[in-house]
Amino acid sequence: MHEALTGAFTAQGNEKMFVIGERINGMFDDVRKGIENRDKSIIQQVAQKQIKGGADALDINVGTARGQAMDNMLWLVESIQEVTELPLCIDTTKFDVMSEALKACKNSAIINSSKATEEELERYVPLAVENNARLIALTIDKSGVPGDVDSRVEMGAAIVTKAMEHGLDISDLFIDPVILPVNVAPKQPVVVMETLRQLKVLSDPPPKFILGLSNVSQSCKLRSLINRTYLVMALAAGLDGAIMDSMDSALMEAGITAEMLMEKQIYCDDYIAAYLGN
Amino acid sequence: MHEALTGAFTAQGNEKMFVIGERINGMFDDVRKGIENRDKSIIQQVAQKQIKGGADALDINVGTARGQAMDNMLWLVESIQEVTELPLCIDTTKFDVMSEALKACKNSAIINSSKATEEELERYVPLAVENNARLIALTIDKSGVPGDVDSRVEMGAAIVTKAMEHGLDISDLFIDPVILPVNVAPKQPVVVMETLRQLKVLSDPPPKFILGLSNVSQSCKLRSLINRTYLVMALAAGLDGAIMDSMDSALMEAGITAEMLMEKQIYCDDYIAAYLGN
Repeated sequence: MHEALTGAFTAQGNEKMFVIGERINGMFDDVRKGIENRDKSIIQQVAQKQIKGGADALDINVGTARGQAMDNMLWLVESIQEVTELPLCIDTTKFDVMSEALKACKNSAIINSSKATEEELERYVPLAVENNARLIALTIDKSGVPGDVDSRVEMGAAIVTKAMEHGLDISDLFIDPVILPVNVAPKQPVVVMETLRQLKVLSDPPPKFILGLSNVSQSCKLRSLINRTYLVMALAAGLDGAIMDSMDSALMEAGITAEMLMEKQIYCDDYIAAYLGN
Repeated sequence: MHEALTGAFTAQGNEKMFVIGERINGMFDDVRKGIENRDKSIIQQVAQKQIKGGADALDINVGTARGQAMDNMLWLVESIQEVTELPLCIDTTKFDVMSEALKACKNSAIINSSKATEEELERYVPLAVENNARLIALTIDKSGVPGDVDSRVEMGAAIVTKAMEHGLDISDLFIDPVILPVNVAPKQPVVVMETLRQLKVLSDPPPKFILGLSNVSQSCKLRSLINRTYLVMALAAGLDGAIMDSMDSALMEAGITAEMLMEKQIYCDDYIAAYLGN
């Protein structure tokens, strides 16, 4: 038990948490209008603010914007690439949109996402390998998000196996154990932490672990407080990064402080600025 | 491994975190002056502010105040008992002061603290039993605070054994695995979390675990941020409470949110007020 537990705290090495900015999503009004009006400046400003806040990559989701998903996505990719070389995290459930968007990415890309079904993994893992892209795979199957730890761990193991089969470098694999809103699924925050601990020691090297963090506080009040508190707990349980709002400075500071306390960064008076490279 | 890990997240049951307010300490100027001038109103105001902030007990330490430690402590106990019936946590290294202060406590008391040496445990455990008091025992021996997990776990086991020998109810025992300042001992936050996980499954029922939280940020900038981030991490690792500044509302909110995310309290929009009984 000792080794396994210590592993859970330290196996992630000294890499910084990987922050995928969540804000370029057509579910937000400003971004939706930017897409619909083909107004690059809105999109580019949001991108730059997220980068300034500490994003290491940018999620891109057309959301509910009017128009063709394909056109919208390709326009977003093009617009954002004008202002950054950071990895773009292509967030769509449409395989053809994913495939074309990856081709349009000049720099490294991340596929967001594959479910843990045989059918999806057999499409998305090869797509990642072909495009030299990283892959986010969710512990979701045909029945949806499982409520227990064991099913999530089984799916995580299936994802790792499938990645190995197709020659996807495990360091290019992110597993997302899927956090649900705490107001409707109160047991899930602990279930996800436990899943992280168990999956962390499943393979060596382990894949990386990521969460769509904001989902934990969906429809809650005090969203930022809940998000940053859960980020800290999940990082301590082995999380490597999150799709989250890097413009929320209190959230970033909490995550950076957690990492300093886990000795990923040595304390200095300016450890937050040092982390952000400011 | 599964059971042990799950245990670490859930074995503490549904009890609220136990907050021992740290501010009645002669190291703080206002309290020192209050003691030296025998000005009850200062002391009583600090006590009341801590209780309003969410303290479940009040630590009492004469610090560097001029005068006899015995007289100062007995005066503090008397002054504070005029305004609250909360447990008082008598914080002194002097056995005679501890002994007399316990006698002066009208309500339940906590001994803060015994080291994990045979010599101190043989004095303090019986003192706790005789006075029907709870006991905080530190994982410190003659050589000081050990740097590793294993030594802390061994001391924790020795403390539990000694408590059982003398008939101290394990639910009246707090073990403090001793957090050191992160700026001089950067590995210790992880070591203490790991110690918590391992000690949590050592006995059934387990003792309670507590930390002198503010020590983690001694001489650091951003003390409140570091304190609240570590509180959240340590609660997720099995901490049951802390000696901390209950007047720091951001700290209390972080702890309460962590507990809500661990399902010790069901989410409602007013979960913080509900927790505090406001």
